Amino acid sequence: MRQLRGFLNSTWVDGQPSRTKLYNPSTGEAVAEVLEPSSSDLVAGLELARTKGGPELRQMTYAQRAEILTGMAEVNAAHAQELDELAMVNGGKTKAGAQFDVGGGTYTLQHYAELGRGIGDAKYRTDGRWLQLSSRHLQFIGQHVWVPVSGVAIGINADNFPAWSLAQKVARSILAGVSFLCKPATATALVAHRMVELWVEAGILPDGVLQLFMGDFSSHLGNLQEDDVIAFTGSAETGGRIAYHTRRIGYRFSAETDSSNAAALGPDVQDGSPTWQLFIDHAVFATTFLTGQMCTSLRRLLVPREKTQAVVDALVAELSKVVVGNPADPSVTIGPLTTADRLREVQRGLRLLRQEGRVVYEGQGSRSPVGGTPSGNFFWPTVVLVNEGIEALMSQHLEVFGPVIQITAVDPKPSVVSEVSARGGGSLVGAVYSDDVPWVTAVAQGLMGHTGRVYVANSRVDRKAPNPATVLPHLVHGGPGRAGGGEELGGLRGLEAFQRRVALEGDEWLVNAVIGTPRTREAVAAS
Amino acid sequence: MRQLRGFLNSTWVDGQPSRTKLYNPSTGEAVAEVLEPSSSDLVAGLELARTKGGPELRQMTYAQRAEILTGMAEVNAAHAQELDELAMVNGGKTKAGAQFDVGGGTYTLQHYAELGRGIGDAKYRTDGRWLQLSSRHLQFIGQHVWVPVSGVAIGINADNFPAWSLAQKVARSILAGVSFLCKPATATALVAHRMVELWVEAGILPDGVLQLFMGDFSSHLGNLQEDDVIAFTGSAETGGRIAYHTRRIGYRFSAETDSSNAAALGPDVQDGSPTWQLFIDHAVFATTFLTGQMCTSLRRLLVPREKTQAVVDALVAELSKVVVGNPADPSVTIGPLTTADRLREVQRGLRLLRQEGRVVYEGQGSRSPVGGTPSGNFFWPTVVLVNEGIEALMSQHLEVFGPVIQITAVDPKPSVVSEVSARGGGSLVGAVYSDDVPWVTAVAQGLMGHTGRVYVANSRVDRKAPNPATVLPHLVHGGPGRAGGGEELGGLRGLEAFQRRVALEGDEWLVNAVIGTPRTREAVAAS
Repeated sequence: MRQLRGFLNSTWVDGQPSRTKLYNPSTGEAVAEVLEPSSSDLVAGLELARTKGGPELRQMTYAQRAEILTGMAEVNAAHAQELDELAMVNGGKTKAGAQFDVGGGTYTLQHYAELGRGIGDAKYRTDGRWLQLSSRHLQFIGQHVWVPVSGVAIGINADNFPAWSLAQKVARSILAGVSFLCKPATATALVAHRMVELWVEAGILPDGVLQLFMGDFSSHLGNLQEDDVIAFTGSAETGGRIAYHTRRIGYRFSAETDSSNAAALGPDVQDGSPTWQLFIDHAVFATTFLTGQMCTSLRRLLVPREKTQAVVDALVAELSKVVVGNPADPSVTIGPLTTADRLREVQRGLRLLRQEGRVVYEGQGSRSPVGGTPSGNFFWPTVVLVNEGIEALMSQHLEVFGPVIQITAVDPKPSVVSEVSARGGGSLVGAVYSDDVPWVTAVAQGLMGHTGRVYVANSRVDRKAPNPATVLPHLVHGGPGRAGGGEELGGLRGLEAFQRRVALEGDEWLVNAVIGTPRTREAVAAS
Repeated sequence: MRQLRGFLNSTWVDGQPSRTKLYNPSTGEAVAEVLEPSSSDLVAGLELARTKGGPELRQMTYAQRAEILTGMAEVNAAHAQELDELAMVNGGKTKAGAQFDVGGGTYTLQHYAELGRGIGDAKYRTDGRWLQLSSRHLQFIGQHVWVPVSGVAIGINADNFPAWSLAQKVARSILAGVSFLCKPATATALVAHRMVELWVEAGILPDGVLQLFMGDFSSHLGNLQEDDVIAFTGSAETGGRIAYHTRRIGYRFSAETDSSNAAALGPDVQDGSPTWQLFIDHAVFATTFLTGQMCTSLRRLLVPREKTQAVVDALVAELSKVVVGNPADPSVTIGPLTTADRLREVQRGLRLLRQEGRVVYEGQGSRSPVGGTPSGNFFWPTVVLVNEGIEALMSQHLEVFGPVIQITAVDPKPSVVSEVSARGGGSLVGAVYSDDVPWVTAVAQGLMGHTGRVYVANSRVDRKAPNPATVLPHLVHGGPGRAGGGEELGGLRGLEAFQRRVALEGDEWLVNAVIGTPRTREAVAAS
């Protein structure tokens, strides 16, 4: 069986076989195992990152760091086919799903490379314009500057987006000037491991800038220092355990965790209208794409009571067309859940939802998975009509991480809609569908109080525009409360997790010399 | 004896007398005691803030919130004389020190009022410009918006700046749209308590927008919720205890804690030159002003070996002129330390410094405090010459919070200077004095790696410009590591601790309607 080693201190290191193996979730076959590096190898890797990788990156300009990202994106693009196949075998993704993960990662690397090129030949990124601080002394100014943290960034990822999650974190970390250690979720680590292998083979990374840990990191948290950063994606439970350590030692922690995302349909939207169709499209996408395993999948449709039956009918019409099975068969449109644990969690979640509603569509019927085996983690699209919004409490908070969507009848008063949505306890995304501008305004303002991203759609939104589940590198990704309270992406905002804002104050000439503004740089060189 | 009550749920509430009393540190006389509110009164106050104060503020525009701040600043200004006197009696401040605290608070309120007026008639503050997100669909845009958190802000303050600390936190919180609960340090709470009393009497605050807790808050941290924010100033030790709770519940925590600030003198600076004089001026200010009790006081002077004796001589010449005593006597230039605990800590710190160096100046000699009593917490300016920079380890980390300054001889190589400075473990401010531009650049870039604010001074800096200890509302205040990792002030950046950045995405017209851009607002009103 294939063995996946960590890459630490410029070496592929041996280690103990991890208890968790990597499987093909369509067949239940084991495809690889992980060799967990020793604590001393990890410590040596962290030391290399702190003393060599970090300092080297910090000496580079943004344009030079961007060049590294461009190289990484090119390697990814050249091996897209191979990476897609690994994502299909080890993650149960369809070809389209694999491309979304792998290609989305490549796109994000390119996006950050472009932002870095835009900053150009500068080591420091200013924040806002300079300020005159003394009316008596006109040359006395202040200027805010973003400065990389002096430690290491640890990217801990979830099992649903092994490629994209790694790519978006490493892109931001390297462009920010901070060396990076990748810790993929073991269950689907094949893609991330191969990406790091390809990047290392390509020889585009200075020593200590990118390293890889495989297996369980939790016993190693004590090796981090207060100038390190953890960027975590995963469950609120695991995040809470890490957070305890971060506060004890004091390093920075940014989390993106659970989310029960809601979409609200306006009372003005007529069955069959363009806005209606967009709503149904997005709901079907949320239920089927990547087998409903996106942290940004819409989970809850909040619908005026008299429209619930029509929504159910429209969803069922689409969901009955899907083909569940092994993505190795090109006719399959929904693959298995990523792991057996995820399958058990979805089954458990559905049992809980039944306590506050009833299942109105179970996709499986008498069908069996195409090209899979009984050991595959298959689950068919399911629609649950839960109790009216003012009654459903638990179900509004529950995130069933699979192809299950719930419909809740609500009084379409904006205050009620946003109160029912808020029962999610903090969400990554919320969506509003209506052509009634005052209604959209009121509901969206309500959602903004407990949501990281709010998607507003009317009949002018094209069906080919990004949908609410899509995380674009341009916009911040994260949400309050159970969604983790973190913030990722958002263009250059995404570098802030790896940098600190420093105030420079003093004589204008000196301040500009320290930052290295072009005018001053030339003059200093000539002096 | 004067009894200080909390203001919760629109009422001045009774409570248990706190164990800690308030003293006049010049005489040792008790001047007030605190009645600590009950847990149920606190819970009622938090509930009012969440259900009434917060929602009301969030409905206001920035201009309307700015009007509240203007009212608060006017009340402060009208009672400046009374507040100064309370700060002198209860804090041991000289008149100039009291004005720095009280007047600095008023100035900060005015500064944020002005920023709010600048944003004007808008409920939402945008972050960056709108972005086109779909090449196929030109009206599909993204826009980032700052949105207030839905919880309460708790401002926990240290004993050295009761007025300014309260003012700068409440100004940012109210302008951000978040209701505020003030928790002053008990030892010097007289000024803060009176400020809240005056603001309440003036009737300028909507219900639940500003409340006051007196006494020990630590047993109440469990009453906070995940959408609350703590803005803490105080010791790293207390901060760590609060941080443990914040992570258990999940609310936000921003801290400004200990700091051992360093100032580096360039090898080019000649004794008696303008840059030299500035360096000596700032060192004297750090040692004497507010009896050295500023978190931004310079503590460590890093000086080329051959210049150390001249620096000692210049400092001693100035320090021998000070008059220590009871600030009630107008001849006094240095008051007592704020509390008996602080005095013991300074004595202990000096014992530790002696282990790595020797005292070259002890101000007291045979002098006794002017107008004070033996129970006063007096301490005379003291200069310690510690071991060479490469040897001194503990002393570089120690923050002696009083009129004690240490001088360290260092090899003036920029890498050595910044390494010795970094032994502070993260600082609020660092300063560099030199006319050698490449040297300043190298040292300042080094300091930026572990410092929140870096002050660069040359012969062009006027002696009347702000000095490194001054915290201006324009610039961010905070630092990494033991300095707490938080960020305060910095103009509108200072609102970020109380807000979240939300991404709005969708049809351009709808996005603008949600934010309420003027053009859209008029059109919607007309529709």
